Amino acid sequence: MALPLRRRLPVLPLLLLAAGGLRAAERSGGSSSAMEELATEKEAEESHRQDSVSLLTFILLLTLTILTIWLFKHRRVRFLHETGLAMIYGLIVGVILRYGTPSTSGHDKPFSCSQEDRPFTTLLVTFDPEVFFNILLPPIIFHAGYSLKKRHFFRNLGSILAYAFLGTAVSCFIIGNLMYGVVKLMKLVGQLSDKFYYTDCLLFGAIISATDPVTVLAIFNELHADVDLYALLFGESVLNDAVAIVLSSSIVAYQPTGENTHAFDAAAFFKSVGVFLGIFSGSFMMGAVTGVVTALVTKFTKLHCFPLLETALFFLMSWSTFLLAEACGFTGVVAVLFCGITQAHYTYNNLSVESRSRTKQLFEVLHFLAENFIFSYMGLALFTFQKHIFSPVFIIGAFIAIFLGRAAHIYPLSFLLNLGRRHKISWNFQHMMMFSGLRGAMAFALAIRDTATYSHQMMFSTTLLIVFFTVWIVGGGTTPMLSWLNIRICVDSYKSALDGPDSERRNRTKQESAWLFRLWYSFDHNYLKPILTHSGPPLTTTLPSWCGLLARCLTSPQVYDNQEQLREEDSDFILNDGDLTVTYGDTTITANGSSGPHTATTSLDGRRTKSRSEEALECDLGAADHEVTSRGTRLVFPLEDNA
Amino acid sequence: MALPLRRRLPVLPLLLLAAGGLRAAERSGGSSSAMEELATEKEAEESHRQDSVSLLTFILLLTLTILTIWLFKHRRVRFLHETGLAMIYGLIVGVILRYGTPSTSGHDKPFSCSQEDRPFTTLLVTFDPEVFFNILLPPIIFHAGYSLKKRHFFRNLGSILAYAFLGTAVSCFIIGNLMYGVVKLMKLVGQLSDKFYYTDCLLFGAIISATDPVTVLAIFNELHADVDLYALLFGESVLNDAVAIVLSSSIVAYQPTGENTHAFDAAAFFKSVGVFLGIFSGSFMMGAVTGVVTALVTKFTKLHCFPLLETALFFLMSWSTFLLAEACGFTGVVAVLFCGITQAHYTYNNLSVESRSRTKQLFEVLHFLAENFIFSYMGLALFTFQKHIFSPVFIIGAFIAIFLGRAAHIYPLSFLLNLGRRHKISWNFQHMMMFSGLRGAMAFALAIRDTATYSHQMMFSTTLLIVFFTVWIVGGGTTPMLSWLNIRICVDSYKSALDGPDSERRNRTKQESAWLFRLWYSFDHNYLKPILTHSGPPLTTTLPSWCGLLARCLTSPQVYDNQEQLREEDSDFILNDGDLTVTYGDTTITANGSSGPHTATTSLDGRRTKSRSEEALECDLGAADHEVTSRGTRLVFPLEDNA
Repeated sequence: MALPLRRRLPVLPLLLLAAGGLRAAERSGGSSSAMEELATEKEAEESHRQDSVSLLTFILLLTLTILTIWLFKHRRVRFLHETGLAMIYGLIVGVILRYGTPSTSGHDKPFSCSQEDRPFTTLLVTFDPEVFFNILLPPIIFHAGYSLKKRHFFRNLGSILAYAFLGTAVSCFIIGNLMYGVVKLMKLVGQLSDKFYYTDCLLFGAIISATDPVTVLAIFNELHADVDLYALLFGESVLNDAVAIVLSSSIVAYQPTGENTHAFDAAAFFKSVGVFLGIFSGSFMMGAVTGVVTALVTKFTKLHCFPLLETALFFLMSWSTFLLAEACGFTGVVAVLFCGITQAHYTYNNLSVESRSRTKQLFEVLHFLAENFIFSYMGLALFTFQKHIFSPVFIIGAFIAIFLGRAAHIYPLSFLLNLGRRHKISWNFQHMMMFSGLRGAMAFALAIRDTATYSHQMMFSTTLLIVFFTVWIVGGGTTPMLSWLNIRICVDSYKSALDGPDSERRNRTKQESAWLFRLWYSFDHNYLKPILTHSGPPLTTTLPSWCGLLARCLTSPQVYDNQEQLREEDSDFILNDGDLTVTYGDTTITANGSSGPHTATTSLDGRRTKSRSEEALECDLGAADHEVTSRGTRLVFPLEDNA
Repeated sequence: MALPLRRRLPVLPLLLLAAGGLRAAERSGGSSSAMEELATEKEAEESHRQDSVSLLTFILLLTLTILTIWLFKHRRVRFLHETGLAMIYGLIVGVILRYGTPSTSGHDKPFSCSQEDRPFTTLLVTFDPEVFFNILLPPIIFHAGYSLKKRHFFRNLGSILAYAFLGTAVSCFIIGNLMYGVVKLMKLVGQLSDKFYYTDCLLFGAIISATDPVTVLAIFNELHADVDLYALLFGESVLNDAVAIVLSSSIVAYQPTGENTHAFDAAAFFKSVGVFLGIFSGSFMMGAVTGVVTALVTKFTKLHCFPLLETALFFLMSWSTFLLAEACGFTGVVAVLFCGITQAHYTYNNLSVESRSRTKQLFEVLHFLAENFIFSYMGLALFTFQKHIFSPVFIIGAFIAIFLGRAAHIYPLSFLLNLGRRHKISWNFQHMMMFSGLRGAMAFALAIRDTATYSHQMMFSTTLLIVFFTVWIVGGGTTPMLSWLNIRICVDSYKSALDGPDSERRNRTKQESAWLFRLWYSFDHNYLKPILTHSGPPLTTTLPSWCGLLARCLTSPQVYDNQEQLREEDSDFILNDGDLTVTYGDTTITANGSSGPHTATTSLDGRRTKSRSEEALECDLGAADHEVTSRGTRLVFPLEDNA
């Protein structure tokens, strides 16, 4: 069930497990002449040196990027995000490598069947595509999961799942079908020089449906834009990466039997659906299970006295998720995402204060380096990749298709979701979500994974252009778009947390009552949190009486001590640097699960639409906050549990 | 000038730079049958899966080690260090892999010329030896340099350099010659079944002369044993790793011309010496230069407002040292060491408070993981390495040789150093240094680098045993040895910093006057620190007046502001967790460079031998400390600069 795309040398073995002793044994054969030995040695040394130079190029690129980012942040330049910058630097180096160095073989041949002439030797930098999947993506995705703002994520869980699953599937099929039309057109006009199957189009749809949160969310974070919109966008783009990976591998797994290998075949289709469900749920399980194991280990040992050990354990367990999933034939990247979410939700509560910041910072650095590396590599690839096929018709078609594909899932889905949501997703938010669908690292990694055939090369080139375009245009346009759409930007509201907008939002928490959220919340709060962390109500009170012994074993003694200060301790948030967010009492929902009738009037569009009576209620609630605890960058506002 | 030993596939390219596109191009040839393609795909997938399982084994091993370490620390067990523990777990897994899994080829053949039968396929875990050099050692060595207690290191610089350079050379030659005698003996008795040259013996001497600081120093740290002894041991073992690497590559470079390729050849010898000096100084320069560049960048930008960027830059620059050195044909590991020292001495001062802890913690985790990985791999290798050659005569000879080799450099060198030192290295300290010469990761990495010939295999097996023996025995024996040798163990002295022993040591700082230290100190204090950091006196006062403009450009405005609080700001120490050490006023030495006549009576043996008049002087000095600043775990005691 592993990804069938994985046909090139995997990196993991390259990374760590080359059979060194074996090679030594070959040498110990002894009969090879000393001259020969010397020659291979020289060769290996030379290649080692050249590799060092290549990596050095990248490091200098990243260093340059970092310095320029600093300059931009220093001067408060917001029209270009760091990833866009990394791409530009990559582009520049790419141009230099391409036109500045003497080349051996012809560059501009769009396609050649016998490229045995080592087309890459003159161009410094090429990576095994699996590097992206096995080394660079995992920290990025894990960080996404680990830094999820959980409260808002879970509050909008239903909508996020709908956007991620249904939305991605819709987008994939619409883009796939539109592109098939484009391909047909190209064939008619005679612009297509090789095969381009329907499954290829669908694969393109899957690849290009993976939206990237990075640029938009960085700006959201900086501007402290609306947290619900943030949660929707972030949740959607994080989960839809996972969906896109699994979807693309399911499409590759779709291989109809018989003669006509690219026609529709019901059996193969259902097999693909099965593959999708199997891989997805399997990866989900793997991630959740390792997260839960880590939570249990950190709960039942006193490891928190030794932050170094704790951090190392955390890192190892999170990494093992990836390996475990890969070893079982699931998708490591997806498993890592759910592992990150689980770790943030449970394990994080058990860690010592120092380990919390350590783990957060460790993955933040890894994420930062990996992401900028990918984006600068993208810039480089535009000029140094040898087999680009830029077809104007295909590219224009693709741009139209992704626009339509995104529109076709955001607006109808929002409409459907609004039928069930108490806090409607306003038009402004919908437009913003439509606008924010930029493509990034995941689309690139999926596209570069297989560039063997004509169709895949064309898809790769097109993906690259789409990424460039969306990152620059969308990244640069986010700030004006936000103000144009009138979406609340409250730079200081997070700091002066008791002022207007936040009290308003605090109120809304009480009003939130999506059934999925409530169901999950009470299960999580009553059983999972007490089992896996030191917080929540004691199990002895929530479990039926006949499992009293078990409940007593599993409930940590701190729970009884902490019960009063429960709401403060239950750190629901992992905050990014300089990002102040408000945490609500953990038991607000259970305390007041069915929200009052006034909620229906409060829309989610970020404008203040409250009546005066609500503001009065708010003040009452504000008075109920018996303590404002400020710990570093965390502000906790416990509400009285009046259950 | 690169290491000639590097004859197996280097890891770096494996790690990141496999020509993925190339392989894709091969596939795009298109003529290969689909079946064949499917077969290689299956194969690659299978190997990927197996690699995941292997890595998973290691991760579980490390997780187990971490949990047991915690248990040991929790129960205050000190007789076994974590590295010893990792080895034991490695051993156990090795035994299981060896005897628990069905094997294909014969195990116990000591040497076979045609081992083409992939002897490693049944045994899960084998790594390219270059992994150790290119991935695992750099973070360990960098961390060693970065966490160097600089004040004490520089105070004892002369002695440390003598031990590291002269000592390692002496040890290498004595062990080499003794082993050559052993080899002759074995040949006489008929115990030697293949060639074993004199150069092999010297190489063994170089490999086994690399002492490892880890175990002893961990215990020193925990017990807060004497800081000068700590500095001597740590400095020696860190630098001697560098010396041993370069020495071993110089010995390999020693290839006499003509027929008799293993006799003495003056030309080749001097060439080897030249290679040694060239590689060492080149690597030193590389490390120092990147460190200095990082310091300048962090000084002249306001990067410290963005700790993430700062940390990323720090990480990238430190890594680039390694690559730069490798690209230029020097030794990356050595360069990384000096880079670490430079970063700690200059760059660390420019970093924001958050970045300081971030960088420290980042490298601490990397170091921890890499080290325990190496040690658990060692345990594994004892049973899973296929070409062990255990020769009892050689092993016993080696143990005697390393004992004599260590004795022959510690005692005579200490005697010579004591002639020039004001603070003698007491007998107790000498015995402790003699005892602490355990072998660890570096010796192993050097030995596993080339296991191609009979002699190298025998050397590898012997090295492994020596590492095991020394880590367990010496590691376990350190605590009793310290108390037996009457070396000060002052658990609380670091905390109650104004009490006896520390005031005593504070006094000694003033008395310290090694010429090398003073020379370096004044140059560093007057020129390097002001140029590279925000501390030290303004350059306008230290540089001659004709370079006034330059001085004004290079001096940061903070220096003028900080001048009064200079002593507090100049953080000389990077402390490990829970490790409280005392910093002395930065200008003590220049202020009172030529110490009084009373210093000659104060010996360095850690017992209180001061006269009453000295204690009175101390009180005066204590009174001069106008401020006791406590910042987190750092205690700074500024002395008045009475120059």
